[in-house]
Amino acid sequence: MANVTLIGAGSSAFSMSLLRDICLKPSLADSTLTLVDIDERRLNTAAALTERYSREVKSSLRSRAFTDRRKALEGADFVICAVKVGGYGPLECERELAGQHGYYRGIGDRVSCYYGGVGAYHQLAFFERLAKDMEELCPEAWLIQTANPVFEGTNYITRHTKVKAVGVCHGHLAYRRIAERLKLDLGRVSVQMAGFNHCIWLKDFRYEGHDAYPLLDDWIRDESKAYWESDRYEARVNEILAFSDDQMSPGAIDAYRLNGLMPIGDTVRSASPWWHHTDLQAKEKWYGPGGGFDSEIGWSSYLREKDAIQAKSLALSTSIGSLLPEYPPVPSGEQHIEIVDAIANDKEACLQLNIPNRDAVEGLPDDVLVEVPVLAGARGLQAIHVGSLPANLMNNVMIPRMLNMERILDAYVSGSREGLVLWLMNDPRTRSYEQAKGLIDSLLALPWNAKAGEHYR
Amino acid sequence: MANVTLIGAGSSAFSMSLLRDICLKPSLADSTLTLVDIDERRLNTAAALTERYSREVKSSLRSRAFTDRRKALEGADFVICAVKVGGYGPLECERELAGQHGYYRGIGDRVSCYYGGVGAYHQLAFFERLAKDMEELCPEAWLIQTANPVFEGTNYITRHTKVKAVGVCHGHLAYRRIAERLKLDLGRVSVQMAGFNHCIWLKDFRYEGHDAYPLLDDWIRDESKAYWESDRYEARVNEILAFSDDQMSPGAIDAYRLNGLMPIGDTVRSASPWWHHTDLQAKEKWYGPGGGFDSEIGWSSYLREKDAIQAKSLALSTSIGSLLPEYPPVPSGEQHIEIVDAIANDKEACLQLNIPNRDAVEGLPDDVLVEVPVLAGARGLQAIHVGSLPANLMNNVMIPRMLNMERILDAYVSGSREGLVLWLMNDPRTRSYEQAKGLIDSLLALPWNAKAGEHYR
Repeated sequence: MANVTLIGAGSSAFSMSLLRDICLKPSLADSTLTLVDIDERRLNTAAALTERYSREVKSSLRSRAFTDRRKALEGADFVICAVKVGGYGPLECERELAGQHGYYRGIGDRVSCYYGGVGAYHQLAFFERLAKDMEELCPEAWLIQTANPVFEGTNYITRHTKVKAVGVCHGHLAYRRIAERLKLDLGRVSVQMAGFNHCIWLKDFRYEGHDAYPLLDDWIRDESKAYWESDRYEARVNEILAFSDDQMSPGAIDAYRLNGLMPIGDTVRSASPWWHHTDLQAKEKWYGPGGGFDSEIGWSSYLREKDAIQAKSLALSTSIGSLLPEYPPVPSGEQHIEIVDAIANDKEACLQLNIPNRDAVEGLPDDVLVEVPVLAGARGLQAIHVGSLPANLMNNVMIPRMLNMERILDAYVSGSREGLVLWLMNDPRTRSYEQAKGLIDSLLALPWNAKAGEHYR
Repeated sequence: MANVTLIGAGSSAFSMSLLRDICLKPSLADSTLTLVDIDERRLNTAAALTERYSREVKSSLRSRAFTDRRKALEGADFVICAVKVGGYGPLECERELAGQHGYYRGIGDRVSCYYGGVGAYHQLAFFERLAKDMEELCPEAWLIQTANPVFEGTNYITRHTKVKAVGVCHGHLAYRRIAERLKLDLGRVSVQMAGFNHCIWLKDFRYEGHDAYPLLDDWIRDESKAYWESDRYEARVNEILAFSDDQMSPGAIDAYRLNGLMPIGDTVRSASPWWHHTDLQAKEKWYGPGGGFDSEIGWSSYLREKDAIQAKSLALSTSIGSLLPEYPPVPSGEQHIEIVDAIANDKEACLQLNIPNRDAVEGLPDDVLVEVPVLAGARGLQAIHVGSLPANLMNNVMIPRMLNMERILDAYVSGSREGLVLWLMNDPRTRSYEQAKGLIDSLLALPWNAKAGEHYR
């Protein structure tokens, strides 16, 4: 059993995923799940669903709900952070403003929202407050950090606080879409991926123990063109989104060609070369009809789906009847509860997690957060040494991405507006210092950025 | 005494600098200076001057001259490489071609010539051949590598051959121009500089033992504007060049403001931010009338002066009378002979040299060549640990510059044309993949790049 506190529980879909996973672990029976959100209405929805679902599956889980974070941290063994400060609305305005300054679809790692707005200020400031509370109220607890930007945010916490933190994402599961496309039996596929969050690469890919990259190369040579012209590519619908299969898109295959390893999951869009993303036409060429997840089409569809899911949760919470059809008792695929079970009950598991490098990936500093295979257990989290990545990948993707993390964290820590401008000077769309400074000043002048504007002097 | 072989001796001015330095060292009396150049006429000029000068100063130095490099390497203790393959003409054509593709003043580290043309191919290929000859003919000799690109070229040799190599430049002496401008007694100034060749920063600056940066800050606040408007700034003429004092230019001061340390010497132009260099107007704003050393004005003046000096050497070599007025017996300021004397005769000296990092500069890999203070003596070359550089400098200048070195070396080692294109994709002026690929293909199709065109497939 364990005391698990979920901060940002108002996203009912995510809360229910964790709940299902807990209820599926006999070793976590009698645990306590504490839900926290500052939005009372959304919190109540999640709490109602949690209570009803626990009863329905006859779980002995205890659940509680608080709008006050500090109350919920007392006695916690694990704190899961899934907070998105301010929601998505302001980010869409920031993205539009950036577009007016010459930055199509906003600034940042292709998807400005990862950064919680300009400089990732709101998210970083929240992580800092949360970590300080944890140092005071539950200093022994693990922070399972799943809020974006996972790379910058978790790295900030591991460097600047005493909290034990690990970054978690589910993007790596997209390797299954490669297996599916190659018609491989998933049970006989084994993979290792390495990189940074949203910038992970298929370092090792095996089928029945043998290197499976040649199978991918065959598919690219013999089948990719027909696939990209087919309805299966265009009309693919995954769990929540309606746009092309970016994992097997021309853009993903081009990134593989340039870097020597296949990009996985979010990597396809956030770490692909900038010239794939100059406008909607380029995005459609590389990521299919709609231009992929981050285009004006793909992202709007994502936001609409998010709203629809939340509305459905609300309706379910006040409905009568079984919740099982909506939340079937099978593992969600998320790793958060796997970590809890591994550490609390010494159920050793090899997971894909974000922890400080300490030479797991060669050629990267020790204090930089990497996403690698990690052995989780009662003794903690131990990275599995994956070795080196190809030179092109390191020189053109990994280290430049690391530098953006360093620039963002350094600007935050030093409160330097100039640091934000210099970060933006490295954007290939910047034509002059005045352009970059103009955008940073405009973003920091927006009403919801008043505190950020004071912070970055 | 030592056997010193100078490859690329046809530049008489440089050969005479080394000769003067040798003749000034009693501990190097009875040494042998072997001059090598494939241009027989220039070699003969240098040889004639060398012989006459040695006689005139009553030196017991022995001198020889060869057009065949291999003969000159036998028995060498020190090999000084000052070769510029193909001269400057082709580079001017490459620069013009780059301009037509949207790259004002060429590609590369602000000054395309540093790279010996596209990918630095000609220089790197020469360094490789020279190092192989040395491994065979004088495996114990030191290679004193002073040909550009010093950073890429010397790093290639230290990584891929068994030759003991050190990179040498004189750019660091420009710190004296700061002292002069601040009206400091040079004898009471002490400095330490660190970085990469052509990317070095005034890490420590003292006057009478105390931090002298406040004196520089005072000058910037109180005197810089008047200086930049004065004739002293505009009309400054150093030893060979007629253009503004870039060491104390607005561009240098802006780089200091952005990075926290003052750039020194060539750094001012090669490591200053790209937005200082977008066109002649920008260059004149930041580097004064004429736009600094690398503009169409400054660089033409440099090439004209080079020709004039060589013509003068030729005239001197056939004249009668003393050479001392032209080559006064005072140290040249070059460090090559200091290294020879330190290693051959254990005359310990602290020099500013380029050797593999091994943690002299924190946060850079061990196998990257850094330019730092080095203790030279019979036990070899030992870097002095200088510690860390400011975060902005590391994130926005040092590591991006290191990545360009890595890209260039990796493209050379793997013979990858795509590697060159990817390197150019990081140039802030690149607007599309096609633009970069178009330029690389055009450059590699030039007649003098036939071998390079075959190498980069």
